[in-house]
Amino acid sequence: MALLRSADPCSAAAVFTTNAFQAAPVVVSRRAVASGRPVSGVVVNAGCANACTGARGLADAEEMAGIAAAGDAPALVMSTGVIGQYLPMGRVRDGVRAAAGALDAGERGWRAASEAIMTTDTLPKLVSRRSACGAFSLAGMSKGSGMIHPSMATMLAVVATDAAVSPACLDAALRHANARSFNCISVDGDTSTNDTLCVLANGAAGGAPIDDPRSDAFARFRDELTGVATELAKLIVRDGEGATKFVEVRVRGAASEADARAVGNSVVRSPLVKTALYGRDANWGRIACAVGYSGVSIVPERVNIWFRGAAADGSEDLHVFRDGAPHPDEELAAVLLSRTDVTLDIDVGMGAADQVTMWTSDLTHDYVTINGDYRS
Amino acid sequence: MALLRSADPCSAAAVFTTNAFQAAPVVVSRRAVASGRPVSGVVVNAGCANACTGARGLADAEEMAGIAAAGDAPALVMSTGVIGQYLPMGRVRDGVRAAAGALDAGERGWRAASEAIMTTDTLPKLVSRRSACGAFSLAGMSKGSGMIHPSMATMLAVVATDAAVSPACLDAALRHANARSFNCISVDGDTSTNDTLCVLANGAAGGAPIDDPRSDAFARFRDELTGVATELAKLIVRDGEGATKFVEVRVRGAASEADARAVGNSVVRSPLVKTALYGRDANWGRIACAVGYSGVSIVPERVNIWFRGAAADGSEDLHVFRDGAPHPDEELAAVLLSRTDVTLDIDVGMGAADQVTMWTSDLTHDYVTINGDYRS
Repeated sequence: MALLRSADPCSAAAVFTTNAFQAAPVVVSRRAVASGRPVSGVVVNAGCANACTGARGLADAEEMAGIAAAGDAPALVMSTGVIGQYLPMGRVRDGVRAAAGALDAGERGWRAASEAIMTTDTLPKLVSRRSACGAFSLAGMSKGSGMIHPSMATMLAVVATDAAVSPACLDAALRHANARSFNCISVDGDTSTNDTLCVLANGAAGGAPIDDPRSDAFARFRDELTGVATELAKLIVRDGEGATKFVEVRVRGAASEADARAVGNSVVRSPLVKTALYGRDANWGRIACAVGYSGVSIVPERVNIWFRGAAADGSEDLHVFRDGAPHPDEELAAVLLSRTDVTLDIDVGMGAADQVTMWTSDLTHDYVTINGDYRS
Repeated sequence: MALLRSADPCSAAAVFTTNAFQAAPVVVSRRAVASGRPVSGVVVNAGCANACTGARGLADAEEMAGIAAAGDAPALVMSTGVIGQYLPMGRVRDGVRAAAGALDAGERGWRAASEAIMTTDTLPKLVSRRSACGAFSLAGMSKGSGMIHPSMATMLAVVATDAAVSPACLDAALRHANARSFNCISVDGDTSTNDTLCVLANGAAGGAPIDDPRSDAFARFRDELTGVATELAKLIVRDGEGATKFVEVRVRGAASEADARAVGNSVVRSPLVKTALYGRDANWGRIACAVGYSGVSIVPERVNIWFRGAAADGSEDLHVFRDGAPHPDEELAAVLLSRTDVTLDIDVGMGAADQVTMWTSDLTHDYVTINGDYRS
């Protein structure tokens, strides 16, 4: 159980899962954000997702949010864990009250909170930074390592800032950041019922409020938020259930950004690509295969695939598939795939859409162990 | 290497992978079928898929088909194995000639052929039957256990019949059968570059030719073919890479058949559902979650999920999710999930579309071992 509370009421913005089964805490938090009223903070529990729990689950989430509220300002509520079980409300009530009595303003508080919400996570996920212009700070935490797939705000993440930002600008900045961070990661292709990413801004840094989405100040804030969200999202992939690899997939040359995303999605979801990466096998034919069934219009002779090396001059790059024909180099492939970080470039050769970058992990024995043996 | 040759030239119909990277043998066989000319048989090699191999791969597939032809009647050609490697043509030439000299008309020949085309398969997949009316026979073989996912004719399958069927009727019957058999199975969600299902009819049974798609004779032939194709497709799932379970997923109450198929697809592809089945964990929340992100319009309160027992009176059935709320029974769930065959019913509660039935396997440690350790 974790409670994040702002000294002053905050502007709030949030994005939630697109799963049709929206967990009770998602329903309650969505309402709170939609009301436009300032928010006091966020209360989070781990172990029980309070999803698929009907009317009783909704009442439980409302009670949990109510206990965590500060005065008039409601708290947002997030839950993570097993789907289809009811919250143990006795423990929830005690937990929220205990947390409210033990608030800690410093880094220790953030660290304790990020540890309290872990389930199959193996490391707490915290990011903080001072903005380049020095005008404000950002701090964020996320959790999640399974049931992770683009088209949502993946699992739970909270970013807090002392910048003064209007709710409309906060929402615009969050949607921009989410599209380039959490919506670009996949661990197993399963979109959770509880995904929530929220950002709270309490204005404690002072300065002129950011309330014009066409202003330079807005662009700066948006980019700083995108940076923090991207780091938090990558931490989730690096901690993907059972993962031994962190894989960056970059798709360019598509006819549209949607096409590039569809190709990337197909590759990062393919169990055969992900097991080959685990086995350090340069089986690029499986990558081409996943590109081919992505549903995007493809001319095989125009497709190129590379494993990228670390050398800045490209001397380590491996161009495995050149204009539709194979150019393997097993020796160099073995070197590149022995590393934890693997970068895969795909040029579709169909157009000039912006490059799309996605991040995923490999599919391992430990993934099967974690999800076959443990009810998560 | 396997060679299937008919005593007389055959009508032929085939369906092929929808992957944009169509393997060279797919291109060559598609042309042969499209020509409408009678076909002499099918030549198949295992170990090298001859996919993503450019112009050289196409020339190799044409040569392989040419060597296997009988007189004027061309042979169809199929390959399965690693993508992105060239065929070892010396061995292919020798292999086809050796096979042509060792043809065996009986069951022994079928068995040897079905064994010759295995890769990660653990059992040969053969089905034969005499039609209910006694007028003709059907025999078929398939191969495949990984890179298996609906929206194609999965991996390789050949059905031969002594019925006399016109090419147009054969094609119509094949499309009907394929939609209800191979397009309803998934092992890992990866649609291969080489999928081919073909049917050959040489008319040796005699009798009036089946050439009217509105005739009773056509309907009987179509249904017999669908039966054989369904058995062959189920054998692939039962032999899914690393599989310990055979899972039937039935979706009803959808607004349309396309919706029902999308829901089924989402469930049979979910790594979390498939690892839970492997772990014998009645974690039905993961099933609801996969229904929820299928993209189909869903009202959570109308969704019902059952694990079906073997008892005809329904006394073993477990209604785990009732109108959007949980009704677990861990004891009964443990019994049902300890079995090799698991049946899962999902009522979406949105309409009256026909039930869609799909078949899948679980996701296991052995799947990861097979695909992480072996270049397949």
